[in-house]
Amino acid sequence: MDIQKVTVAGGGVLGSQIALQSAYKGFDVTIWLRSEGSIERAKPKLERLRGIYKSTLEALKTDPSAWCRGLTDSADVPAEKIDELIARVDAAADSIKLTCSYDEAFGEADLVIEAIAEVLSEKEAFYAEACPHMAERAIVCTNSSTLLPSAIVGYTDRPGKFLALHFANNIWKNNTAEVMGQPATSASAYQAVVAFARAIGMIPLELKKEQPGYLLNSMLVPFLNAAEALLANDVADVETIDKAWMLGTGAPLGPFRILDIVGLSTAYNIVAASPDAANPDTTAGKIAAKLKSYIDAGKTGVNAGEGFYKYR
Amino acid sequence: MDIQKVTVAGGGVLGSQIALQSAYKGFDVTIWLRSEGSIERAKPKLERLRGIYKSTLEALKTDPSAWCRGLTDSADVPAEKIDELIARVDAAADSIKLTCSYDEAFGEADLVIEAIAEVLSEKEAFYAEACPHMAERAIVCTNSSTLLPSAIVGYTDRPGKFLALHFANNIWKNNTAEVMGQPATSASAYQAVVAFARAIGMIPLELKKEQPGYLLNSMLVPFLNAAEALLANDVADVETIDKAWMLGTGAPLGPFRILDIVGLSTAYNIVAASPDAANPDTTAGKIAAKLKSYIDAGKTGVNAGEGFYKYR
Repeated sequence: MDIQKVTVAGGGVLGSQIALQSAYKGFDVTIWLRSEGSIERAKPKLERLRGIYKSTLEALKTDPSAWCRGLTDSADVPAEKIDELIARVDAAADSIKLTCSYDEAFGEADLVIEAIAEVLSEKEAFYAEACPHMAERAIVCTNSSTLLPSAIVGYTDRPGKFLALHFANNIWKNNTAEVMGQPATSASAYQAVVAFARAIGMIPLELKKEQPGYLLNSMLVPFLNAAEALLANDVADVETIDKAWMLGTGAPLGPFRILDIVGLSTAYNIVAASPDAANPDTTAGKIAAKLKSYIDAGKTGVNAGEGFYKYR
Repeated sequence: MDIQKVTVAGGGVLGSQIALQSAYKGFDVTIWLRSEGSIERAKPKLERLRGIYKSTLEALKTDPSAWCRGLTDSADVPAEKIDELIARVDAAADSIKLTCSYDEAFGEADLVIEAIAEVLSEKEAFYAEACPHMAERAIVCTNSSTLLPSAIVGYTDRPGKFLALHFANNIWKNNTAEVMGQPATSASAYQAVVAFARAIGMIPLELKKEQPGYLLNSMLVPFLNAAEALLANDVADVETIDKAWMLGTGAPLGPFRILDIVGLSTAYNIVAASPDAANPDTTAGKIAAKLKSYIDAGKTGVNAGEGFYKYR
């Protein structure tokens, strides 16, 4: 099918990025928001992104290391072409429609990307309200990180046209898009979403079946957990563990640098979900206690200026 | 203590590398071998390494990417200095003594590095025979990857001076040395080994307590296992899983490239050791079956020219 009109439901961190990236790559984009208040809160997010997109492109004129894979196909772009792209960012940001009308948002959409809160009851309420306003042809994707599409599909009216399209934060830079169907997803809807992901400058990563955590987190969580266990069991210090990983595998970042980026609160929530975490004698309990000691000291990661390492 | 005379027990892959690297960095090195036959088998290994060390240094004259951290402190070395280092490789290789006499090998050693087969009964027999020949001052390290030093220390006569010093393959390039004591290891012996590791061009990674798998493998095994599970459960293909890891973390290699380097037989042995592996319905059973299908087809990794990827 031919996707032209895209509606993003939700204007949060990811919703605003998906909207601007899609508009930048030439799609006709609407953001649906629950209220006028949400519209006002979404606007400064889009303005901030507009600035980041433009300054990143501007930097690329003199610094190839500024290259972000979602913005241009290569780092080698002539300055005049970059000026065109900067103008395109402005046109894209100006073109995005924000509305809380279901009809206006969903009536003509070819593709709907739902990026609302990760709360099943909120997803349920959203799909129950929104689906009746959508055209039959519309494909619907959830950007959920933690809920499987099979847990959500029952709230929609289109099992064959419902799947997950999962973005990473800072999508203009970290341009992977994990595509994951549920058992009823049709091959044509799946492939249309893969093509759309590619069309907005993403590298689609195709999952053949449902997997909690998709691909990246399915590997990252056990890896980070193993590193956390070494620290919590006092086998070695942060710097030594990171060095072992970087020197042993050639990776640019060790596990504790990655944890600082992910954020220690997220890491804590993952380990705290394990039943063992309540028992301080288990490895999970020791990891939870160790992470909590950092969090209680305000060291929650890069965004706080300090986590396992200092960034101030 | 002052370490000058180093004896390496065993002339296998790692033993020969540890011996040449130590001699190259100025130590007086002896290799103890079990028999005249073992001496004859060790000689070509040392000659091969001599050639690798010399050609790597020669390449560094024109190609900074040839730099190996164990050979020079930086990639920026003047050609005359490199010629001196090449001469030093020859002098080092020529200086290494090979013997099957316990007295000759161990009588004057300040440091003994045991790198014999990973079989507990062989370790037991070795230490029972060798320890009585050693000076009281001698520090003894095992290079064992799979046995903890506390499992071996009882065969020695020097609990305070016994610990693990664990090298990676191709130590002139992968120059990490994990240093791990057992409960009775003295702080002075531990620190002497850390200093020795540094003196032979290694980056010492200090473990504060015993940990099966040391640091690197403690993280690598669960990470690779998670990637193998994604493949064995048919969630995605090899290339997609590798791409997810590389794009998501900036790593130069995905898990299946790493598995090709590690070797699929080693990966198979690790998963086959799990009790679940015998049941084909479990994830471990599916991983074992998947790895076995590659191994049966001769695709055991980089060394075979093909594993998950082709290298021919």
